Amino acid sequence: MPNHAMLRRQWRKARRTAFWLALLLPLAMAIGSAVALFLWALERATQARFDLPWLIWLMPVAGFAMVWAYQRFGGTSGAGNNLIVDEIHQPGGGVPLRMAPFILVSTVLTHLVGGSAGREGTAVQIGGALAGGLGRRLALDPASLRILLICGIAAGFGAVFGTPLAGAIFALEVLMIGRIQYDALLPALVAALVGDWTVLAWGVGHVHYQISFIPTDVAGWFGVDLLLLAKVAVAGLVFGLCARAFAEASHGLTALWTRFVPYAPLRPVIAGVLILALVHALDTRAYLGLGVWSAIPGDPTLSGFLQPGQADYTSWFWKFLFTVITLSAGFKGGEVTPLFFIGAGLGVALGSLMGVPTDLMAAIGFVAVFAGATNTPLACVVMGIELFGATHAVPLAIGCFTAYAASGHGSIYGAQRVAVPKT
Amino acid sequence: MPNHAMLRRQWRKARRTAFWLALLLPLAMAIGSAVALFLWALERATQARFDLPWLIWLMPVAGFAMVWAYQRFGGTSGAGNNLIVDEIHQPGGGVPLRMAPFILVSTVLTHLVGGSAGREGTAVQIGGALAGGLGRRLALDPASLRILLICGIAAGFGAVFGTPLAGAIFALEVLMIGRIQYDALLPALVAALVGDWTVLAWGVGHVHYQISFIPTDVAGWFGVDLLLLAKVAVAGLVFGLCARAFAEASHGLTALWTRFVPYAPLRPVIAGVLILALVHALDTRAYLGLGVWSAIPGDPTLSGFLQPGQADYTSWFWKFLFTVITLSAGFKGGEVTPLFFIGAGLGVALGSLMGVPTDLMAAIGFVAVFAGATNTPLACVVMGIELFGATHAVPLAIGCFTAYAASGHGSIYGAQRVAVPKT
Repeated sequence: MPNHAMLRRQWRKARRTAFWLALLLPLAMAIGSAVALFLWALERATQARFDLPWLIWLMPVAGFAMVWAYQRFGGTSGAGNNLIVDEIHQPGGGVPLRMAPFILVSTVLTHLVGGSAGREGTAVQIGGALAGGLGRRLALDPASLRILLICGIAAGFGAVFGTPLAGAIFALEVLMIGRIQYDALLPALVAALVGDWTVLAWGVGHVHYQISFIPTDVAGWFGVDLLLLAKVAVAGLVFGLCARAFAEASHGLTALWTRFVPYAPLRPVIAGVLILALVHALDTRAYLGLGVWSAIPGDPTLSGFLQPGQADYTSWFWKFLFTVITLSAGFKGGEVTPLFFIGAGLGVALGSLMGVPTDLMAAIGFVAVFAGATNTPLACVVMGIELFGATHAVPLAIGCFTAYAASGHGSIYGAQRVAVPKT
Repeated sequence: MPNHAMLRRQWRKARRTAFWLALLLPLAMAIGSAVALFLWALERATQARFDLPWLIWLMPVAGFAMVWAYQRFGGTSGAGNNLIVDEIHQPGGGVPLRMAPFILVSTVLTHLVGGSAGREGTAVQIGGALAGGLGRRLALDPASLRILLICGIAAGFGAVFGTPLAGAIFALEVLMIGRIQYDALLPALVAALVGDWTVLAWGVGHVHYQISFIPTDVAGWFGVDLLLLAKVAVAGLVFGLCARAFAEASHGLTALWTRFVPYAPLRPVIAGVLILALVHALDTRAYLGLGVWSAIPGDPTLSGFLQPGQADYTSWFWKFLFTVITLSAGFKGGEVTPLFFIGAGLGVALGSLMGVPTDLMAAIGFVAVFAGATNTPLACVVMGIELFGATHAVPLAIGCFTAYAASGHGSIYGAQRVAVPKT
């Protein structure tokens, strides 16, 4: 029979739940709305870049302006995702609210002039900044603030890609290498779902990826194509090494910029000139911007890689180069969509080489390189399932887990801590 | 440029990988074969129980025999799943090889005479016993033995339910409440896949569950049925409380048996008589055995709950009662399939009450009660996706995460440790 102490405990629990819902629902709706605005502006900026080809010549100027503005007015915002992860591990100065408008405007500017960058960093920073701002306003205790920041990451990530379940798991998994803790399992899921729904409610859609390969197309052994899965494991190893190379190249190049170009706003000017030279030398604009779609027929794109029967051996490499130059120099934006492009492109290359349907391998590379570069294998498997359906859950898991195991302890997020070393 | 130290490190890594594959492949094939034998025998035993109705009168005798045999010859085997989890946390006397034949034979015997029990405990113990035996034979160091035991759990679980991805995650997630560590992410996946394939190769199939409800059937708000999901969250809370009640009732009843019936082999005799009396009083055999299917038309079954438009408010309760009596008294078998039955049955009841398609709610209850009782929310979401497809990933996650949050720190596995308390 329930006694008074138990009833009191249940009452406290119910009040706590109500408090969190009252906090999370408006926060996630605000984050979702900001992400919807961001996605809309990004689409407009990308369209404008195709409509007005001269815009890319402004790349050096835009780069200078954004790094200068960050230095002058951004406060600690420039630390980006790492600041949020650090604040979750060890509360310090907090995540400034201004991080949200800064990252939103500068990322759109990066894409307007053709920098090769992504979206998830921006969405995560919008989420973290709004969560941090709300937490400070309410003077939350450190434990609650920590949960709120995790929820901000989940809402931003879930909203920007339309993958709420992956967003919730990503927010917990990205904090440490080799360990997930369930501090905020349910709040993160609520935040990610509400963030995603808010984007939908604003009428902003996501690209629907689809791969046509279905496993019954191939000869199998009791329905299991062992050779295919062995090839996927080998590809996973390559995806992991590619992720590792990306993280190391990013950090290495950042160190070079710091050493040889002490005045930070000058770095994106030089990088912009470099990228314009590359565009001229390769005679293609395909590696600028997000790379999800292109107005120029024949360009390699993320969507294109997922079509069956592709053959492309080099696009992944050029996207890799464009992206590390862009981001290491200080242009703002995320790493993840370029990582999707690099992974899917490398998947097409490996699929062609190994005789595996390229659309399947592109889908695996899509999530596996990301899994290796951010050390979030579970979130990436779930994201793969949310994007491509459960049919391919086993090859997706083999790809992501192998890439995770092979990518070492490097990470595109320097603030990630090693909880359980990979062996 | 790679130098000698790096090459040596890569060579050591490759050798280590080859060593683990050489260890894991035969181990997982042996576990898969034993699980296939077990599933085959279980099917025969269940069929025999329907063909020869008098068999259930042997329940008291069979119970006496199995507990007596365990006491006399089983060594530490009687500790079951908890022994394996304990050995992973803190290597001690090891997991004895004889645990495998003991649990296999005694579980089949339980089902032959109609005890209400499951399969996963048996499969996990087969996996742990074979892994422990191999580790001892090879005199592995404690760290490697730990990984091997985790792989044994993964192979057993993945093989017995045909859900390899869930098996791999379950093996990592079940060890601690509130934390997953990636000690053995890739080895566990390999073991679970090979275990599952081995069962398929022996020609032993799994029950294919399917639910007909698809979300486009209902009115939605931007494709999201918020009311439905709110109801799922409330149901998740009830699933969690049911899981908590199951764990507490099991532990409480076990304590009562220990206190009032000191001679252990006598306990299942009394329990058997109790169950036979219940069968007589309720005039149904529907709550005996696995409950996945029944030869008697009209019986509530796990498969039946997943058909659309069911109405059943009490079956879950009777199954709950039959199962805690059976298992607490010392009959051998797992808890999970009865938990599936209880969850799916409770889902049907809640679905009817709340006006939610009962097949969807049954599918959510199927995994959510299990998630709450074992504190493995991620494995259960993935299992739900492997069984029912990705369409329902969001309601499955809401159900499992809520049930996990509501089930408290109780667990059907006493050896589970609390890493991160639920708040």
